[in-house]
Amino acid sequence: MANTLYYFPPCPFSRKVRVFMREKGLDFSLVEENPWRRRKEFVEINPVCQVPVLVNDKSVIVDSQAICEYIEEVCGGEPRMGRSPYERAKVRRLVYWIDCRFYHEVTRYVINEKIAKQYTKHGSPPNPSLIRASMSNLQSHVRYMEHLIDTNGWLASREFTLADVALAAHISLLDYMGIFPWDLSPTLKEWYSLIKSKPSFSQILGDRIPGFAPPVHYAQLDF
Amino acid sequence: MANTLYYFPPCPFSRKVRVFMREKGLDFSLVEENPWRRRKEFVEINPVCQVPVLVNDKSVIVDSQAICEYIEEVCGGEPRMGRSPYERAKVRRLVYWIDCRFYHEVTRYVINEKIAKQYTKHGSPPNPSLIRASMSNLQSHVRYMEHLIDTNGWLASREFTLADVALAAHISLLDYMGIFPWDLSPTLKEWYSLIKSKPSFSQILGDRIPGFAPPVHYAQLDF
Repeated sequence: MANTLYYFPPCPFSRKVRVFMREKGLDFSLVEENPWRRRKEFVEINPVCQVPVLVNDKSVIVDSQAICEYIEEVCGGEPRMGRSPYERAKVRRLVYWIDCRFYHEVTRYVINEKIAKQYTKHGSPPNPSLIRASMSNLQSHVRYMEHLIDTNGWLASREFTLADVALAAHISLLDYMGIFPWDLSPTLKEWYSLIKSKPSFSQILGDRIPGFAPPVHYAQLDF
Repeated sequence: MANTLYYFPPCPFSRKVRVFMREKGLDFSLVEENPWRRRKEFVEINPVCQVPVLVNDKSVIVDSQAICEYIEEVCGGEPRMGRSPYERAKVRRLVYWIDCRFYHEVTRYVINEKIAKQYTKHGSPPNPSLIRASMSNLQSHVRYMEHLIDTNGWLASREFTLADVALAAHISLLDYMGIFPWDLSPTLKEWYSLIKSKPSFSQILGDRIPGFAPPVHYAQLDF
């Protein structure tokens, strides 16, 4: 079963799926897809023109969480979404929090105000008040995530799960853009350093976003 | 195992869980919780103070989708999230679309601009341009959902699934507020009429939101 993942380098949901698929040991090839281009062949695969999309001989699966749940169901190996219904509930609850709340309150502003404007060459310059709002929202999320890691070891439990992958995917983008406040957050810094050292995460650290150079520490395991 | 669901009548995510739990035949008691009050005992149960929350002897489960996945895993009966990994991927993908995109582009404006202002007695009058924007967004969602029902029978497949429950939960709130454009959408009207006639849905139709009377057709099965 040949798996192809349509992904976009700055998309945190694409990053989450790429890391999760490597973590589960699944072979796949990558096709880079800029959803803002609305390429005809891609719109035929996914009419709503969002990445990531997983395509294999049998199916087209849209949505990062639907893809990760599917992979957890069909692949063997260590569970990465919890070992009981209640543990899975805790993992899922945090993944939705990160992919909805964290995304809508933080990452989305950075993508829309900085990255989209560079890619599409449309619109006004980045709006500094929106970026400031996202950085203010980020601080309360950081405190909540630090509390969870202090309590559980990893984000949702004593094991590394999809919740950690989801948060690291968003943080990796903020870190690439040089705007993550590492000084405020020694617990998250140590947690992210452990994730950076995982083989499943290394490819993300090699990505480059046209128009933006990452800070020197971006790919360093010790930062 | 005594199950208690903390819910808020106008919350579409609470509505989704209530219908899904009845659909799965689970016994539970209800506690009405207005999250804007930030009641101390509820903040102790869920520090982020969101509904719905499912509490039983063993666990506290937060987030509507985490609750529904948990119930699907632990309860017997007919599957309501698909019968194969690929079917479940299709159901989940639509549920996330409805609970993230549809919510953020449509329902959220109606809740924030109309219902929250009535409950909290704070803030300015409803902003008509935001309500107009949500109604414009609603039209493209309606076209997409009609296309899915025309193609599949129900929303995600030939069977009634959690995707239908999720959409009906949002639509029931818009219909209660008298702003769903039924004239535009005979397919959705027929689909919603079938859902209204299900015993699992009847309790929702008896809910009342202080300060707002529903239109006469709201609880009528034939409307």
